[in-house]
Amino acid sequence: VTLTATAVVGLPEIGEGDDLAALIASRVSLEAGDVVCVAHKVVSKAEGRVVALSSVTPSARALDLAGSEKDPRVVEVVLRESSAVLRASRGVIISRTAHGFVCANAGVDTSNAARDGEVVLLPVDPDGSARALRALLPSRPAVVITDSFGRAWRHGQVDVALGIAGLAPLDDWRGRVDARGMELRATWLAVADAVAGAAELVRGKDSREPVVVVRGLSRLVCEDDGPGAVALVRPVAEDLFL
Amino acid sequence: VTLTATAVVGLPEIGEGDDLAALIASRVSLEAGDVVCVAHKVVSKAEGRVVALSSVTPSARALDLAGSEKDPRVVEVVLRESSAVLRASRGVIISRTAHGFVCANAGVDTSNAARDGEVVLLPVDPDGSARALRALLPSRPAVVITDSFGRAWRHGQVDVALGIAGLAPLDDWRGRVDARGMELRATWLAVADAVAGAAELVRGKDSREPVVVVRGLSRLVCEDDGPGAVALVRPVAEDLFL
Repeated sequence: VTLTATAVVGLPEIGEGDDLAALIASRVSLEAGDVVCVAHKVVSKAEGRVVALSSVTPSARALDLAGSEKDPRVVEVVLRESSAVLRASRGVIISRTAHGFVCANAGVDTSNAARDGEVVLLPVDPDGSARALRALLPSRPAVVITDSFGRAWRHGQVDVALGIAGLAPLDDWRGRVDARGMELRATWLAVADAVAGAAELVRGKDSREPVVVVRGLSRLVCEDDGPGAVALVRPVAEDLFL
Repeated sequence: VTLTATAVVGLPEIGEGDDLAALIASRVSLEAGDVVCVAHKVVSKAEGRVVALSSVTPSARALDLAGSEKDPRVVEVVLRESSAVLRASRGVIISRTAHGFVCANAGVDTSNAARDGEVVLLPVDPDGSARALRALLPSRPAVVITDSFGRAWRHGQVDVALGIAGLAPLDDWRGRVDARGMELRATWLAVADAVAGAAELVRGKDSREPVVVVRGLSRLVCEDDGPGAVALVRPVAEDLFL
């Protein structure tokens, strides 16, 4: 098997109401079995998930958490996007979002907005966004909506899947055995997250290449949209690190 | 930029003392700028990092943690490979290893051993193992030694880099700006982990394809071996989730 990942070049700046599917389809020839990875920020912008900071009045808690380092209006937006704040330390806020994702700043992005003084939120329903995009793309490729998340015990960020349509989120080898008949150790591979990471490697982080086409994974691409990225979220009841 | 990832086929079962570099080089034509990703288990086996459970006497703590579900001899090996046990719950042991990695069972692998009743440990010095392998491979490709790690808040495992030679572990965009001149949010990308994840997508988990060649990342491949995967380990002092 050979996997390839190629960035789609020439996409314009995306704004609310833009037809992302048409913009992608006019720049790349998609094939059945492709996986189209889309940085969430262009999905969020197309969906109008942008907040003007001038419209935000920070709460007392936001003012407290912001201290002298952060814009309290940004912290206020982070708090509104958080179902729980897990850690707030050294200028870092680690939140659980309404989707159940655990990430810095509840995914609120202070860069990459279309205008100064705006922040970009995560899509309300990234799996729904992925399904909608898939339905509009030629050849019905799988769609993965991605964001860069930090990790508790490792430096740096890696891209993960926020929304998925048509790709197995997990490749389930549980119960399967290795070449010698022994049960496998790594038995439940988060393949959609690995695909998001592969896409990250080929796109410029200056936001001009938010879309990457990954080929060679048709064994993981399915006709139905599948369970989505919600299947990747570990339930709070199983969280060992609350 | 196009990234490709292709598994090396036809490698034999690896045992202690095998010349991994020669076995790889005879099966794939390597080029400068390639990244050779190697599942740690074959590195560990070549280095003799294998323990026969018949030689292990479980301690009282191992017997306690094993309960009725786990082999107390395996738990004993896990404890010996752990510098700290962070969580032990529901049959899962999350450890910090001597290298500083936080992972399940201190990376001790009960499958994929050459013989029944053996377990495979992580290499003692994965960065050193990567450097040694790089030095022996034609065209001096970068080398990444990988393992599958779970994540605190997401289901499933993804492959990460345990040892690195000749590849930038992190792609540092801190201080750089986006297309509009705004500071970037995701500024410190753990590219070596993303490469490990991409490699995982193309190799069979039945252990017959432990080696994957990734192309198209020569911008991240460097002449010197670089800081290694140790640069990816978040120091305990910065750990928010102890």
